[in-house]
Amino acid sequence: MIEIPGPHLLFLGDVTNPLDAKTAMGLRDWRPERCIGQYRLPGCTVDLGLRDMNFSDAVAAGAKDIVIGVAPSGGFLQTEWVSTLIEAIWSGLSVVSGLHRKLSEQPELVKAAAASGQQLVDVRVPPALIPIASGRQRSGKRLLTVGTDCCVGKKYSALALHRSIKQRGIAATFRATGQTGILIAGAGIPMDAVVSDFLSGAAETLTPDAAADHWDVIEGQGSLFHPAYAAVSLGLLHGSQPDAMVLCHATGRTVIDEYENYPVPDLRECVAQYEQAAQITNGQARVVGVSLNTLGLDDASALTACDEIGSLTGLPCVDPLRHALDPVLDALP
Amino acid sequence: MIEIPGPHLLFLGDVTNPLDAKTAMGLRDWRPERCIGQYRLPGCTVDLGLRDMNFSDAVAAGAKDIVIGVAPSGGFLQTEWVSTLIEAIWSGLSVVSGLHRKLSEQPELVKAAAASGQQLVDVRVPPALIPIASGRQRSGKRLLTVGTDCCVGKKYSALALHRSIKQRGIAATFRATGQTGILIAGAGIPMDAVVSDFLSGAAETLTPDAAADHWDVIEGQGSLFHPAYAAVSLGLLHGSQPDAMVLCHATGRTVIDEYENYPVPDLRECVAQYEQAAQITNGQARVVGVSLNTLGLDDASALTACDEIGSLTGLPCVDPLRHALDPVLDALP
Repeated sequence: MIEIPGPHLLFLGDVTNPLDAKTAMGLRDWRPERCIGQYRLPGCTVDLGLRDMNFSDAVAAGAKDIVIGVAPSGGFLQTEWVSTLIEAIWSGLSVVSGLHRKLSEQPELVKAAAASGQQLVDVRVPPALIPIASGRQRSGKRLLTVGTDCCVGKKYSALALHRSIKQRGIAATFRATGQTGILIAGAGIPMDAVVSDFLSGAAETLTPDAAADHWDVIEGQGSLFHPAYAAVSLGLLHGSQPDAMVLCHATGRTVIDEYENYPVPDLRECVAQYEQAAQITNGQARVVGVSLNTLGLDDASALTACDEIGSLTGLPCVDPLRHALDPVLDALP
Repeated sequence: MIEIPGPHLLFLGDVTNPLDAKTAMGLRDWRPERCIGQYRLPGCTVDLGLRDMNFSDAVAAGAKDIVIGVAPSGGFLQTEWVSTLIEAIWSGLSVVSGLHRKLSEQPELVKAAAASGQQLVDVRVPPALIPIASGRQRSGKRLLTVGTDCCVGKKYSALALHRSIKQRGIAATFRATGQTGILIAGAGIPMDAVVSDFLSGAAETLTPDAAADHWDVIEGQGSLFHPAYAAVSLGLLHGSQPDAMVLCHATGRTVIDEYENYPVPDLRECVAQYEQAAQITNGQARVVGVSLNTLGLDDASALTACDEIGSLTGLPCVDPLRHALDPVLDALP
């Protein structure tokens, strides 16, 4: 299990496109209390609305690390960023990254961290010792978000469901399975980086025995209908042994993103196939609702879209960024 | 893609249980022309029926490598074996291993190989650069063995199918996906060691474009119904894009091996679920036959068992180690 120090100073580099700062925005949206400020290089036009801070101010304000909140194309840190991060390390900050290229593979950073006693935390590294899945039923309840496709809102849905469950006074833990989710949660396992033999074992490890009325709310990955990533989805599904699933979908998504020859199945078919696959390890598993990403629709159209999918599937359907999640929560076992 | 030098001297260590020599036996059964002889330490009671040779005799007879044909518990080489292997290296043999613990992580072996110019070949290491699956349809035909469980005969079935297809004068290639299969084929990708994001991409890489009437016969892994390994099975299935599948089963297997709370589904259900999953990436995919492992039955009972499953599933059913595969081959598209 990866542990992230925090609180954070969010590093934005010199990016100009808000989409490149998705990780920083996720942290700001879901963990504002852990975000002390932002650090921007000259030329950066993205603004998280946090205080701009230099490293010593951030340390004085309680920051323990600097999080790389941007995703440069290819996953490589730009050379000029590295010298800035070394300065951050010498100022007393650990460095946290979810990029493909590991901090620990960059000798200048390794040297500075070793000399100064700071940590380099690569969140996209699975734990060293993951057991093979046992298939044993665990105590406590589990909710997994599953998707018709990638990038439909499985992470935001899980975070919103987790928050709503807790607001009802029910004990719950968000379980992160991807790099941004792990940065938000401060812990987790990056499923897509786990060696395939150990995938379900990793999911079992991530969601251990818990009190009978406790909910693990697990961030889903990929989609059973994705030609590249379905294995990740299935391993996570089997190891999670979810009692309940929420199917995540985005309006207008008729084919798999970037795979135009692969249609998104009818949502009733998606529900049926997720239930079939999940019931291998939990005979009670069922889809209890649909979380619809209605980005780009006006409020009235968003409601209509939810109503249509609700009628089609016979399940409660809401957009968790616009609507209360109560209809879905009421359907939990 | 891993390439194995060969021909081989088969190293049996000092084992006394034939089951511990499964890899050596697989090579002897399926690649006798690549097996020059066997090397046994004092105390070894297993006999492959090959000539016992010392290292210089083996090199003189054309051996290029020594294959660790035994699987010690835990996957670690015993200390006394290491010194023997170093002697083999200095005699002019590369070393080939399918064990978990890599040869390249054992400094004494690395030093000897570097100094003598021999190779250390770890077959359980996936290639460094595997692309994400594209989902593109490839030319040529593909047959994948799929299982009701692990250890039901998917590798032997694929090898037997490959041989029978070639005996009909049809071009075919066996595609290995596990360590013993890779040692038998001399090349392949160990699917269970691939990082999960790249599983389907690895399967695509393993079975590239081919002539329209060429068959890739792909060794299956795990089972869709296995609580630990279904992800490996699904990633391989999606990336393989099989036109045909042969369902492998073992008589008397009613629950998943070592997972007694997990029943093996009715074989009709297995066929339906494999076809559903495979049709994500190949709409024409179907199960064309059943390969039944009837080990332990007499000939009459084996025939009866095949007939019963044939009637149940409506598919040709044979034991490839006892019966001709023609009924299954006749059902290929």
